Amino acid sequence: MKYILIVIYIFTYSLNLIAQKNNSHKISHDKVMDSLTRSKNKVTETKKIAVLIYQDAVLQDFSGPIEVFSKARKLTRGKYEVFTVGLDTMMIGTENDFVKLKPDFTIQNMPDVDYLIIPGASMPVINDLVVNDTFTNFILKMNAKQKTKIVSICTGSYLLARTGVLTNKKATTHYFVADDFAKQYPKIKLIKNVRYVDEGGFITSSGVTSGIDATLYIVGKENGEKIKQMISRALQYKFHEKEEWPVAPNGMKYSRVPTNY
Amino acid sequence: MKYILIVIYIFTYSLNLIAQKNNSHKISHDKVMDSLTRSKNKVTETKKIAVLIYQDAVLQDFSGPIEVFSKARKLTRGKYEVFTVGLDTMMIGTENDFVKLKPDFTIQNMPDVDYLIIPGASMPVINDLVVNDTFTNFILKMNAKQKTKIVSICTGSYLLARTGVLTNKKATTHYFVADDFAKQYPKIKLIKNVRYVDEGGFITSSGVTSGIDATLYIVGKENGEKIKQMISRALQYKFHEKEEWPVAPNGMKYSRVPTNY
Repeated sequence: MKYILIVIYIFTYSLNLIAQKNNSHKISHDKVMDSLTRSKNKVTETKKIAVLIYQDAVLQDFSGPIEVFSKARKLTRGKYEVFTVGLDTMMIGTENDFVKLKPDFTIQNMPDVDYLIIPGASMPVINDLVVNDTFTNFILKMNAKQKTKIVSICTGSYLLARTGVLTNKKATTHYFVADDFAKQYPKIKLIKNVRYVDEGGFITSSGVTSGIDATLYIVGKENGEKIKQMISRALQYKFHEKEEWPVAPNGMKYSRVPTNY
Repeated sequence: MKYILIVIYIFTYSLNLIAQKNNSHKISHDKVMDSLTRSKNKVTETKKIAVLIYQDAVLQDFSGPIEVFSKARKLTRGKYEVFTVGLDTMMIGTENDFVKLKPDFTIQNMPDVDYLIIPGASMPVINDLVVNDTFTNFILKMNAKQKTKIVSICTGSYLLARTGVLTNKKATTHYFVADDFAKQYPKIKLIKNVRYVDEGGFITSSGVTSGIDATLYIVGKENGEKIKQMISRALQYKFHEKEEWPVAPNGMKYSRVPTNY
């Protein structure tokens, strides 16, 4: 009986060794991620981020920020939680209907958040949305919450500007539409040649990929430069705060005035 | 009777004028987009792009390429068609379950395509996928189709490499995993300090955001430098082919050997 037990013990022990070997790379990698962040970044609080999605929203506008928070979640042991929010529970197609998304919440039943991300869309879509009271009222409701910062990406700036909350504040937007934005909202101080503008309760970013910089900036402010650089390298993306805006290619600059092309 | 008709005519004409004025910015913008592309880029053919999505795939890996093709579609009057493909019809959560996607097709019922995009994921996820025969067989099946080029983003390179199709070919991957990749696949010629490598039937890209460069390169090759630059500017993103890879931050370099962190 004793010998049988010893044999079983040795057999089980060997199996364990084999299993450990097979999983060693996973264990190793997890340990690395752990050790990098354990001491300095114990999660004492979580940050919740809602991403507003709507039909024809530009995918890259919100996927850049989500990616930054996804990597930040890994490096901060779960500090960041991201979910998507739609006007209702229906599936949503991004621009050209290339991707179909299911929102996690609606604007009625979503929990309180630390950040609301508002992506942009092409101007015909934006021009329809700025006169949509549901959007305006939702943004005003979110703005009334003390702890919620609103982050617009690209032409998402129009949805924010439309509510009046940016009046007398600094903001930026995509450089193709910057002149139009300044004309539409003369009381907002348009900042050019930047990737984002932080105005406390509001952060506005310039075109599309600048959402990566705006959210790297947020994560850096909350977790330090080291974490920010790690995420930047994980994305193989060079963070930049300033950008000399190039000249808009012929005809790409947005204008409301009919022209004879 | 004559006067009534004249009054009705003037009334209708006025209504039309008002309607035209309200829509003028839309008409104008559409005309611009049209005029830019009409003559030179008449759609004589469409290019179909399938994006393989799976649980825990990295959102930015495939959303960058989708964004490039979405803008390319607008600038080429509908030349590019993108859809997502899953192993089955189930909803798929990207890394950390931050976004839930509904695939348009399954790998069984998808149409023939010109490009298959394979996004990456974190290494624990990738290590499970490379031993998944369903993935391997699907990629081999796609490779057997003459017209289909396969584009891997970031660690998606492992899924491609695993099938053997890259043997004796040049390829790249995320710089965090490059040394491991070279060790795992010694017969593949690993290229460093680049954003992508074109090997004819296969294009491999380095980390995450490099998927934007790889697909800008594809669109540029098919439609010329002008369209490529327009998309690059629309995304406020600086296309780059080369990149001096930085040193991996302490502990971020991937290794299968257990270490005592």
